[in-house]
Amino acid sequence: MTGTEGFSWTVHAIGFVASLRREAIDDDWGEVEATIALTAPYGAAALRGLRDFSHIEVIYLFHGVDASSVHTGSRVPRGNAAWPEVGIFAQRARNRPNRLGLATCALLDVGETTLRVRGLDAIDGTPVLDIKPYMTEFGPRGSVSQPAWSHELMAGYY
Amino acid sequence: MTGTEGFSWTVHAIGFVASLRREAIDDDWGEVEATIALTAPYGAAALRGLRDFSHIEVIYLFHGVDASSVHTGSRVPRGNAAWPEVGIFAQRARNRPNRLGLATCALLDVGETTLRVRGLDAIDGTPVLDIKPYMTEFGPRGSVSQPAWSHELMAGYY
Repeated sequence: MTGTEGFSWTVHAIGFVASLRREAIDDDWGEVEATIALTAPYGAAALRGLRDFSHIEVIYLFHGVDASSVHTGSRVPRGNAAWPEVGIFAQRARNRPNRLGLATCALLDVGETTLRVRGLDAIDGTPVLDIKPYMTEFGPRGSVSQPAWSHELMAGYY
Repeated sequence: MTGTEGFSWTVHAIGFVASLRREAIDDDWGEVEATIALTAPYGAAALRGLRDFSHIEVIYLFHGVDASSVHTGSRVPRGNAAWPEVGIFAQRARNRPNRLGLATCALLDVGETTLRVRGLDAIDGTPVLDIKPYMTEFGPRGSVSQPAWSHELMAGYY
């Protein structure tokens, strides 16, 4: 840690995604099944008890995104002129600062050092940084609202 | 990127948390209000349109956790003998690999380069790595289940 300015941190992969999806496609992630294979030293102990949860949250890296394509300001989501130009922190595009992805997905099975999931929007080879059990209490508290464009964008995502 | 083994990645703070909470307390985060102040080059453009969302997801660093206290296997949550010993990826304890925190919190206000939020479980000075708008479509799909101990643990969290 180097103080407020220039703060940086090194993270490492705790596992990798194995999936039949090898390209970053925008839509139809809902039925995609994938495997997360842990890497040493993470193994059976780290997954103990996880099977009692129906869903997990996965933090991963958009490793295929080149640094030069990262947006720091605003852009129109998917370049769709029907939608407004919004900030990179007001959308979930993958070419974002730190290139962190976040998915809530169904946990289908837990093996010795692997997890089988459905609805993980990450391509084959994606480095995984964290796995958290989904607890309803961590969901949004209070009523949720979001702009119409975001519903339109998400219509075919899952 | 260095291949499957030893994969590591450098992330940087896109902002910092300002909060009256300066210590990592386990419970009662629900009514805590905090400010996220962006750091350059992130500013008004990056936040454009965010106010149309009621909630955001924040990925941050548990920067106060010492590397030597990170668990890679299993442990009893909060050391409470009434609960089972579960893997670090089956709980949300902060002394976890990569020390990444994740919160869904209510967005109260958006300023030029600041956000006011409620329910962010991060202490004063916490480095923020990403802000994503909460979209209902990214929530869990299908019915959610979780073990009884996790409900008990969360009873006083928010």
